[in-house]
Amino acid sequence: MNLNALHKIGYGIYVIGSHMGKKLNGQIANTVFQITSEPPTIAVSINKNNLTHEYIKTSRVFSASILCQAAPLPYIGGFGFRSGRDTDKLKGMNYKIGQTGSPVFLDNVTAYLEAEVIQDVDVGTHTVFIGKVVAAEVLTEDPCMTYEYYRQVKRGTTPKTAPSYIPGEKAGGK
Amino acid sequence: MNLNALHKIGYGIYVIGSHMGKKLNGQIANTVFQITSEPPTIAVSINKNNLTHEYIKTSRVFSASILCQAAPLPYIGGFGFRSGRDTDKLKGMNYKIGQTGSPVFLDNVTAYLEAEVIQDVDVGTHTVFIGKVVAAEVLTEDPCMTYEYYRQVKRGTTPKTAPSYIPGEKAGGK
Repeated sequence: MNLNALHKIGYGIYVIGSHMGKKLNGQIANTVFQITSEPPTIAVSINKNNLTHEYIKTSRVFSASILCQAAPLPYIGGFGFRSGRDTDKLKGMNYKIGQTGSPVFLDNVTAYLEAEVIQDVDVGTHTVFIGKVVAAEVLTEDPCMTYEYYRQVKRGTTPKTAPSYIPGEKAGGK
Repeated sequence: MNLNALHKIGYGIYVIGSHMGKKLNGQIANTVFQITSEPPTIAVSINKNNLTHEYIKTSRVFSASILCQAAPLPYIGGFGFRSGRDTDKLKGMNYKIGQTGSPVFLDNVTAYLEAEVIQDVDVGTHTVFIGKVVAAEVLTEDPCMTYEYYRQVKRGTTPKTAPSYIPGEKAGGK
């Protein structure tokens, strides 16, 4: 069995935002997907250890800001590889409060979606949150970042808390 | 609300295979994603009307053959836009029977995964099947087909039964 086959699955890269009262957070995820068109619903897989997991569990809402291919690695790094428990990740970021109260990010983003959670699926280390889309806008027609581009061109890496982490892979980053 | 934002979500393109006894089928899907790394699990959203849905419900296994970017539209069309109830879609196709008994497709495929279903999530028109990965191989290092490439370069369209169908979109295909 060659688990590198998992890296051939195609994804985009997203900043998942949520809130708990007035506290806001955002984290990087690659596992966002649409699951039905009627009504429009999307799903995201979030590690149970992440602060955003706690926020979504409480507020029952999340946003997904879809990153464009030109998004610089330091911008992505500002949301990933560190926890909102230790730092205010939104400091200095350009965002607005969306319809769900979640932060919607406005730099390096081609489009965003906001959703109200209708189902939580416990999948062990992660929860798959299934949400009904309640807001959606396209901001630019720039090409979207793909996970493959992030890994191969940007040399971006995957933290241990990601669904798509494969033990033993080399660290990179440029 | 602009639901075209849903088209900015990144996906690959997959042939999802399953079986019911000796009967085999394959269908196109774009919503495959990894949900945990320990153990490696993947999910796929399948329309309840599809024959492959019936097969996965019965056999509790599926394969996902990951298409490469060079896959010709007629090849993809051989699996999509028609039902295995009306025709033997596998006739003339190059495939092997995988470890789960599901067909694994060998042309225009960069890698494949096979999974045993551990959870069915009813999401209305579709079921999200969550499966533990039991087999995985990389066949080539060719670039993978992305859903964006399929839509924009290949002018591929989306059938009504797909999770990512948006009512009113124009048909194309080249």
